[in-house]
Amino acid sequence: MSAPSPAAAVATTVTAAPGAPELLARCRELVRPELVSALAGLDPWTGEMAAFSLGWRDVSGAPAPDAAEGKGVRQALAVLGAEAAGADGADAVAGAVAVELIHAFSLLHDDVMDGDVLRRGRETVWQAYGTGPAVLTGDALFALALRTLAEAPTVHAAAAVRRLCATLTDLVRGQADDLLFEARPWTGPEAVRMREYRVMAERKTGALLGCSAALGGLLGGAPAATVEALDRAGRHLGVAFQAVDDLLGIWGDPAVTGKPLYSDLRNRKKTHPVLAALASGGRAGRELAELLNASGPLDSSDGLGSSGPLDSSGLLDSSGLLGAGAPARAAQLVVDAGGAAAARDAARRELDAARACLSGVPLAPRAAQELDVLVEFLLDRVV
Amino acid sequence: MSAPSPAAAVATTVTAAPGAPELLARCRELVRPELVSALAGLDPWTGEMAAFSLGWRDVSGAPAPDAAEGKGVRQALAVLGAEAAGADGADAVAGAVAVELIHAFSLLHDDVMDGDVLRRGRETVWQAYGTGPAVLTGDALFALALRTLAEAPTVHAAAAVRRLCATLTDLVRGQADDLLFEARPWTGPEAVRMREYRVMAERKTGALLGCSAALGGLLGGAPAATVEALDRAGRHLGVAFQAVDDLLGIWGDPAVTGKPLYSDLRNRKKTHPVLAALASGGRAGRELAELLNASGPLDSSDGLGSSGPLDSSGLLDSSGLLGAGAPARAAQLVVDAGGAAAARDAARRELDAARACLSGVPLAPRAAQELDVLVEFLLDRVV
Repeated sequence: MSAPSPAAAVATTVTAAPGAPELLARCRELVRPELVSALAGLDPWTGEMAAFSLGWRDVSGAPAPDAAEGKGVRQALAVLGAEAAGADGADAVAGAVAVELIHAFSLLHDDVMDGDVLRRGRETVWQAYGTGPAVLTGDALFALALRTLAEAPTVHAAAAVRRLCATLTDLVRGQADDLLFEARPWTGPEAVRMREYRVMAERKTGALLGCSAALGGLLGGAPAATVEALDRAGRHLGVAFQAVDDLLGIWGDPAVTGKPLYSDLRNRKKTHPVLAALASGGRAGRELAELLNASGPLDSSDGLGSSGPLDSSGLLDSSGLLGAGAPARAAQLVVDAGGAAAARDAARRELDAARACLSGVPLAPRAAQELDVLVEFLLDRVV
Repeated sequence: MSAPSPAAAVATTVTAAPGAPELLARCRELVRPELVSALAGLDPWTGEMAAFSLGWRDVSGAPAPDAAEGKGVRQALAVLGAEAAGADGADAVAGAVAVELIHAFSLLHDDVMDGDVLRRGRETVWQAYGTGPAVLTGDALFALALRTLAEAPTVHAAAAVRRLCATLTDLVRGQADDLLFEARPWTGPEAVRMREYRVMAERKTGALLGCSAALGGLLGGAPAATVEALDRAGRHLGVAFQAVDDLLGIWGDPAVTGKPLYSDLRNRKKTHPVLAALASGGRAGRELAELLNASGPLDSSDGLGSSGPLDSSGLLDSSGLLGAGAPARAAQLVVDAGGAAAARDAARRELDAARACLSGVPLAPRAAQELDVLVEFLLDRVV
């Protein structure tokens, strides 16, 4: 793991890598025809909902040129995984299609489970088409992902399917953990520990990113050690990604995230910075716990919070209901208790761990450099 | 297809086959340990919901010895498929586990989509645990099914996974068809045609039965022609099974089905006997269409139907709302228009077609005889 990176050693000898946007665009272009052709295998109805969920169509089925697509990080990791193994990126396309379809499936079903009504600034599929159709479309994407990979014309198809199946188990467990965390208290022996949170994040976010890179390597004929290193790197990347997402869920620019400021705090979501703040043991952490434990919505803007006179803190009324200043105060307490810094530090640490995984195996220099560009891009949103 | 059945030719030389209940019990016993061990791979929460859905546990997680389990038809078809290929039934176990898990997944998600609150006389999973957890448990079973098959220690694993994946596409399309049928009118150019209904039934019910038998054959090393014959036989069986289920959905004994008499008519479900009656073109068919097109619930027992004076038919009040006699009258009209007979005939025809598929390829005599017992058992509920 600590051996000098072959990529680093020769980095100066290859042309400067393109920026992340160009890189993502190149991979998208490579994968898109196969993704389109896979989706053509769906019946028209689930196909329409799938195209909506991918940001390709609006709710009437018309092309939606202005809708935000996903970044396509998973397909890019698959393509770069193959290239890192010295293969052609095209060798990874079936894997790239499969992981993008699995990602789309998991967003669809997660939005049903979490009751989220907005994604990338648009209605979620269940909100636009109904719960049943959204569940069905998720199932269709799930089946299509496996089918695409299982039928890929390569000797590595069976091993790729086994790897994706193992990942799916992780993905489901991560979502189960996340749902179960909701029901647990903020403090006391039943509170969610940071260690548990990391396990959840690795399953829910890291497993598929790791699988994406690993499938690329596998389909590109990489040796087992390289495939495992790509998998581990992707998992670390996923945990870092989740920490960054958690920071954006509180402090992200509403114009960019499409959600209100302090959104995850208003929804009392158990996230990295909040759990770290509560675990800090200080005064700010205790005050944060008090706010989170108070009755009523943390966000009074919906009219359900306090409308009575507030106590000296300006946050609680005599019934313990929260005033309008509560989300901002809670966010400040997360900072004061060191929660924001802890999430940032964790993201940086996981990023370094991802790099260490990659530098421990021989990778094609250009692809290694591009993986690095991609990794940095995913995290420089806040760290 | 019309060649004399090798099984029939030697049927008298083998010991009399056991009855269907013994047969189903033998296959269940063979498959159960692997099914239990596969389910142990789930996290405790989805594992508990999965065990509830299989009738193994009650909602508190305690053993539920009195709950009705499924018949285990799919696992039996897989085991018999392998035995028909001259292999040991044990060779089919990974396939049997996979198809039972896929069946459980599809029931879970279908109940969410259809809003059904009861199954086998108990609450459905979404009703007992919530929609989100039910969707998640379905996903967990789906992933587990594929994983079990993909990791099966046999050279046939990859081909088995490809076959199951193709089946899943069919399964999803069948459910999509079924949901879309609901929105279509009873009469006119947009009405659901019998031909479309058969396609839906083959996808929704036949595909997995066919896959079950075919996976057994495949894992048992059967030649391709035998695997295809098992698949086609299972598909015919599924269509027959659906027709029988449709008859039971109207005239089934409430004590056995756990549903009220005329249940599918009360719910205005588009089923084989009803569509056949409407397509008959006669007077009874037209009167049936009128009843089905009338406003309000067909079942006035929920208090939403007519409570005013009824017209001379005793079925409609002056606002066109239906009286309490409507379900029984509709059922009688289905019979009068020949819909019940049409469904019975279709079941018998599909059953003969299933037998013809099986008699066209060489099968081990004992297993062929047992397949016949099983096929007959599944249909003799009403035909």
